[in-house]
Amino acid sequence: MPELRKDPVCNRWVLLAPQRATRPNEFAPQSQDRAPHPRGIPAAYPLPEDCPFCEGNESQTPAEIDAIRPAGTAANGPGWSTRVVPNRFPALEGTFTPLTAENVLYQQSPGIGAHEVMIESSAHLTTAREMDDHHFRNLVTVCQRRLLHFKHEGHWTSALWFKNVGPDAGASLAHAHSQLIVLPLLPPVLRDELAGSLSYHHRHGRCVFCDFIEQEQSGGPHQVAAAPAVLAFCPYASRFNYETWIVPRRHESHFEDTSPETLIQLAGVLRSVLVRIESRIGRASYNVILHSSPFDTHKLNHYHWHMEILPRISRSAGFEWGTGLAISTLPPHQAANLLREIQI
Amino acid sequence: MPELRKDPVCNRWVLLAPQRATRPNEFAPQSQDRAPHPRGIPAAYPLPEDCPFCEGNESQTPAEIDAIRPAGTAANGPGWSTRVVPNRFPALEGTFTPLTAENVLYQQSPGIGAHEVMIESSAHLTTAREMDDHHFRNLVTVCQRRLLHFKHEGHWTSALWFKNVGPDAGASLAHAHSQLIVLPLLPPVLRDELAGSLSYHHRHGRCVFCDFIEQEQSGGPHQVAAAPAVLAFCPYASRFNYETWIVPRRHESHFEDTSPETLIQLAGVLRSVLVRIESRIGRASYNVILHSSPFDTHKLNHYHWHMEILPRISRSAGFEWGTGLAISTLPPHQAANLLREIQI
Repeated sequence: MPELRKDPVCNRWVLLAPQRATRPNEFAPQSQDRAPHPRGIPAAYPLPEDCPFCEGNESQTPAEIDAIRPAGTAANGPGWSTRVVPNRFPALEGTFTPLTAENVLYQQSPGIGAHEVMIESSAHLTTAREMDDHHFRNLVTVCQRRLLHFKHEGHWTSALWFKNVGPDAGASLAHAHSQLIVLPLLPPVLRDELAGSLSYHHRHGRCVFCDFIEQEQSGGPHQVAAAPAVLAFCPYASRFNYETWIVPRRHESHFEDTSPETLIQLAGVLRSVLVRIESRIGRASYNVILHSSPFDTHKLNHYHWHMEILPRISRSAGFEWGTGLAISTLPPHQAANLLREIQI
Repeated sequence: MPELRKDPVCNRWVLLAPQRATRPNEFAPQSQDRAPHPRGIPAAYPLPEDCPFCEGNESQTPAEIDAIRPAGTAANGPGWSTRVVPNRFPALEGTFTPLTAENVLYQQSPGIGAHEVMIESSAHLTTAREMDDHHFRNLVTVCQRRLLHFKHEGHWTSALWFKNVGPDAGASLAHAHSQLIVLPLLPPVLRDELAGSLSYHHRHGRCVFCDFIEQEQSGGPHQVAAAPAVLAFCPYASRFNYETWIVPRRHESHFEDTSPETLIQLAGVLRSVLVRIESRIGRASYNVILHSSPFDTHKLNHYHWHMEILPRISRSAGFEWGTGLAISTLPPHQAANLLREIQI
C-alpha cells in the first residue's frame, strides 16, 4: 500500500510506493536499484508482440475502465483506438479517507487515490509525429471524461494528467501513453500557482495567464503555434530549454469545462508543438502536464488551466535541488523561433 | 551575462545562463542540444592528461583563488591537494547590485554572484572510495573558508556548496570536484526550510532538526553512520531511495561557525556515507548539498545546518513536476539498514 509521508521541516509531503520498484522498464534493462547505468535507449524497442499496450495484447493489462472503440467491439478485445486501464503499479490506490497525519516527527497517511494509464493508440506508435490529430483528439476527450468522473465522485481534491515520453522524462514504456493520478491532497505545484495567481489578481485585477496571452498573441516573440481558441508559447521565465505552455485564449479555470471545439483545437496545437520539439531535439524526452483548478472550486477568475511541455534535455543537479531555482541555457524567444521554423 | 527571470504566476525565479550550454561534458559525447542520447558513461573516462582538474594541467583552469598546498609551492603549479578556481562556465557572475525585477510580466535582473569549483584531489580520483579522509577534511575546510570569505564581503544573501557525482546527478566531469555558488537572493529551498522550521519552533519550542537527532540517535531505525559530534540518517520522509542527511548533534545554525573538530568528524562521516552509497548502488550518481543559514542572520534557534545526500537512481517524471511531490520506492529504515551493512 502506498504511503504519504510528511517532512516536518518544510511540511513537504512525499510518496513512498515500494511496489513501483518492480515495474518493468524497457529503457533500463538492468535493475534500477543495482546498476542505473547505462541508460541509453536500448538498441531495439521491444517488438510489438511483447508490448502490453498493443492491440491484441489486451489481456496483458488490467480490465479497461474506459475506451474509445466502435459500437459492437467488446471491451478488452481489439478494435479500440484509445484505452484507459488501471496502472498495474499504482503510485496511489484505495478508497477515500481523510488524511491522518498528526503533527509529529513521523507523519504519515495512506497513499490513497487512483492511477490510470491512457493508451493512446492501438498500433505501436512511440512519437507524436507518428500519431495524427485523431489520436490527440481521442486523448484529450478521454482525459476530460476521466476528470469529470473523478470530480463527480465528490471527495477527491484534484487529479493530474501527464505524459512521460522517453527515459529521461521518467517513461518506462515506449508505446504512446499517458497517465492520470487522482490525489487526496492539493499538489504543492497547484497550491503555489493558485496562491500566486490570486495574489496577481488582487494586485492587478486581471488573470496573469490572460495577461500573458494578450502579450504573446499581439506580437510577443515567444509564440510557437496557434489556433483560434488556443495559443502555444515559450514562457519568458522558462525552466527548461524549449519549455512550451498551451493555453485556451479565453479565460477558463477548469479543463473539464472546456468545449468540444476547444478540445479539438487543443489536440491539434499539442501535436504541432510536440512534433516541433521532437524534430528539434531528436529522440526527445519530455513531459506534458495538465494544470487545472481543483475539483472543489467553482469558476475562478484568477486561475487559467494550461498544459506545460517540459523537454528534459539536461539533468537537474545540486544547484537546482539545493536552491529550488531552475537553470536553462536557451533564451525562450530563440527557442520559440527555432520551434516555429520546423516544417510539419 | 547570466540573467535571473521571474515567473509572475508563482513568483518563481529561474536562471538563464546561455554560456553554460557550451561547457564540456565527458559523459555526453554528443551535443546536448541535438542528441541527448545515449547518456551512458562512455567506455573510457578521459585520460588524466586530458583532464583539466589533474595535477600538471593547472594551466587549463582559470587562476586559483584558494588552495591547500605545501609552503614553497607556487600558485597554479603542481604540489597542491585541494584547489579552488572560478568556474569557466559560471551560472552566476559579476559584482553585487540589488535585484531590479519590477512587478510586470517580463521580470528580470542580472544573474550576479559567483561560481567556484573545488578540485578535491590532485590525482584523477572519481569516487569517494578512492579518496581518503584527508581529501574530505581539506574539502570541508576549504568550503568553510570560502563561505567565510563571501560572508565577509557583506552584500551576499547566501552561498550554496554542492557536489554532483555522475551524469544522472548533472556532473559533466568525472574528476572529484564540487562547486560553490554565491547568490544575490535567498534560494527558495532555504526560504521554505527557514519558514517551516520557524513555524515548528513556534509550535513546539524546539528545533525540528534537534528533535530528529534525539529520535534517531536513541535507537531510531534510520541511523547510517555516526561520530561523537555528527550523525547521519535516512529521513523518514525521504524523497530519494537512500537519501541521507548529515547533521551536527549539537545545535548549530551556521556551517561557517562550526569547530575544526566537528569539521574533521563531518569529513569522516561524509566519506563513510558516500562509500556506502557507492557500494550499494554501483556507479552511483548523487548530489551532496550543504544547507546552512543565510549570511545576514545571527545564530538561529530554529534552524540547523546539515548536508543532504541525494542519490539519483530514478528520473523525476510528470508526476513529480506536476505535483511537486517526490516518489521513492525504498522505505528509509530499509535503506539505512542496507547502508549500515556495507563494510568499509
